[in-house]
Amino acid sequence: MEAQHARSDYGLERVPGKDIQSRITALQESLVAESLDGAFLLQNVDVYYFSGTLQRAILFVPASGEPALMVIKSFQRARNESPLEGVYPLSGREAILPLLADLGHGAFKRVGLELDVLPAAQYIWFLKKFPQTAFVDVSPAIRSQRMIKSAYEIEQIRRATTVVDGDYREIRGRIREGMPEIEVDGLLAGLARRGGHMGVMRIRGWNQEMPTAHVLVGETGAGLSCCETPVNGIGITPAMPQGASFGRVVRNQPIYIDHGVAINGYHSDQTRTLVIGKLDATLARAHACSVEILKQLEAEIRPGIACSEIYTMAKTIADAHGLAAHFMGHGEGQVNFLGHGIGLEIDELPVMAPRFNLPVQEGMVFALEPKFIFPALGTVGIEDDYRVTADGLERLTLTEQDLLYIQQE
Amino acid sequence: MEAQHARSDYGLERVPGKDIQSRITALQESLVAESLDGAFLLQNVDVYYFSGTLQRAILFVPASGEPALMVIKSFQRARNESPLEGVYPLSGREAILPLLADLGHGAFKRVGLELDVLPAAQYIWFLKKFPQTAFVDVSPAIRSQRMIKSAYEIEQIRRATTVVDGDYREIRGRIREGMPEIEVDGLLAGLARRGGHMGVMRIRGWNQEMPTAHVLVGETGAGLSCCETPVNGIGITPAMPQGASFGRVVRNQPIYIDHGVAINGYHSDQTRTLVIGKLDATLARAHACSVEILKQLEAEIRPGIACSEIYTMAKTIADAHGLAAHFMGHGEGQVNFLGHGIGLEIDELPVMAPRFNLPVQEGMVFALEPKFIFPALGTVGIEDDYRVTADGLERLTLTEQDLLYIQQE
Repeated sequence: MEAQHARSDYGLERVPGKDIQSRITALQESLVAESLDGAFLLQNVDVYYFSGTLQRAILFVPASGEPALMVIKSFQRARNESPLEGVYPLSGREAILPLLADLGHGAFKRVGLELDVLPAAQYIWFLKKFPQTAFVDVSPAIRSQRMIKSAYEIEQIRRATTVVDGDYREIRGRIREGMPEIEVDGLLAGLARRGGHMGVMRIRGWNQEMPTAHVLVGETGAGLSCCETPVNGIGITPAMPQGASFGRVVRNQPIYIDHGVAINGYHSDQTRTLVIGKLDATLARAHACSVEILKQLEAEIRPGIACSEIYTMAKTIADAHGLAAHFMGHGEGQVNFLGHGIGLEIDELPVMAPRFNLPVQEGMVFALEPKFIFPALGTVGIEDDYRVTADGLERLTLTEQDLLYIQQE
Repeated sequence: MEAQHARSDYGLERVPGKDIQSRITALQESLVAESLDGAFLLQNVDVYYFSGTLQRAILFVPASGEPALMVIKSFQRARNESPLEGVYPLSGREAILPLLADLGHGAFKRVGLELDVLPAAQYIWFLKKFPQTAFVDVSPAIRSQRMIKSAYEIEQIRRATTVVDGDYREIRGRIREGMPEIEVDGLLAGLARRGGHMGVMRIRGWNQEMPTAHVLVGETGAGLSCCETPVNGIGITPAMPQGASFGRVVRNQPIYIDHGVAINGYHSDQTRTLVIGKLDATLARAHACSVEILKQLEAEIRPGIACSEIYTMAKTIADAHGLAAHFMGHGEGQVNFLGHGIGLEIDELPVMAPRFNLPVQEGMVFALEPKFIFPALGTVGIEDDYRVTADGLERLTLTEQDLLYIQQE
């Protein structure tokens, strides 16, 4: 059952004021703990997380007291969408200095900036304008805070999983032998959008891009490329070397579909393997191993288990099935990774990887994606979304975990 | 007639070696002119422009001699796609120091970095690793160079305009009264992808996002938002405040569609106004003014005319029709802007704006987009793609410029 959210003048659902309040409070606790006078937030997603609006703005959060949302465009819209009290029009970046002085902020010793994403030229601008100030990276604190989701946030991700589930149902009725991967991809893009997908998928990592779907049939699923993920796809051009290719749906070959949707900014990220006919026995066994891994993790993950341990548990099962060489990639493309946090970005914390020793905590939401890649045959696997509860794991994904067989007349 | 391009191992069209060679030569001339020892290029699009591959890599271009493409992932694929001679595997960022030393590069005094896009943390890394080196922004030189397109590049943009034209034809047969804007948007995304769109639109400006289409019916076309463009749309959430809304197609209201496609990385960006029934007289007159502006600019633009002058010519026509308050936005949303370069990014140079005095040159490719926004009625206008020839302007857009009437049975 969905909560009723207050709506903006444009009729859009606003972020609840109590969420914004508790996010600001948590950030201020981090700022105090790190002896920062405040933080300037400029990245669109971080501004949205802490203010409820993605309008073009600079958000100054002092270590204590009211944040100042200084808006370049659109001020009217930002004021209407944000529950923050202090929303001010800004003629341009230069104008933050007199405005902050008016608000009683200044003489900063240490201030946070999002150094992982802020472009160098903007960083250099801050160094010049605040020559007495030491700037430190506030992104680790923000990413750590954003790792734990509120009830509101989990509701949005749940809505997104519902759209993805509907898309898998509908696409099963529309895929035909001989259909190009890019056509299936295009159908999914259309279904997702009609279902309420906000139209883009967001990834924090620089230079990375995230299409709405990867549709990979047979050996194209084993294509090598630049993504920081086990599966890339070939794409249709070296200029966008991932995702669907000009390859076509072939009977008895795996149709691997990694598909995402975002609702009110929050992503679901899911993978299913579809097939027309009957899958090669090697691939079918590997797929069954993906399911076995998820079932076991669903039974064993609870608060306190280290993320690295989750990776190890999955790898141990894969190894026991003799699938070590195919688990999470092959050859140059193999990665030590099993899953990732999801939220306003698709590459949130935590990461299920060998060196990520953080224990799982209640309120984390992540995708687990055991996958197996066979160079000549293709890729199989599943990816489901989960939230960590007080004593275990709740699966948010609605779609059945087995191979999805397509009945063709 | 399309040229035949060499293909990669994955069967994808490679960038011609002579294009890569001439791009490197031109960059090296800039480096020499600015007394730089070389430049590190890291942004995916710039790496693609100068190497022919978008694999994860650091490209070092010395002021003279062979560039070094140092590839983190996938080395195999990068070596296959790039016409460059010097392609090397890289275990991680740290490894560039010994590798460059091996190649005889070092003791840098002044080196270029892409300061407009490179994240601050990476800039700080370069400062630490090369403490004797002054880093300067090489992006203005790169953007200036990329402004002039080769025959190969113009061919790619031409192919993209052809896909957009086909999409406008097909969507006219599928739009129905009552259809939500997001459904029309989804249909266009699917058509574009089936037609060979690479799946993402790229924009260099930080924090900016570019969906495949903006579908805006009636007053939603006048919605205020954060985009650095005259028209934003409302979107369906404050988290993605642009483009199609939950609003529906209504008879006699303008259906404004700004739609882009990218082929081999190169964008076309076009806008058409569609209507079922008969458009309000005010809007119809404003649309006719858009057409008049483009027709006049097509007749008058030639090499040597300043970009600012092109903006002024358009504004003069709008003013003469009494449309000054609606030209390129209204109220807070009005912008001094008429067009922008297109290429590997949708926000390339030149910009047709008051302070952009650069003269138009042969080989430039840009979109001109005279649009009129009426708060209660909606948005009308057109946007066409052009290339500058030796003595004038060639229209690359294939679609008719008049209002596109949709015949409904």
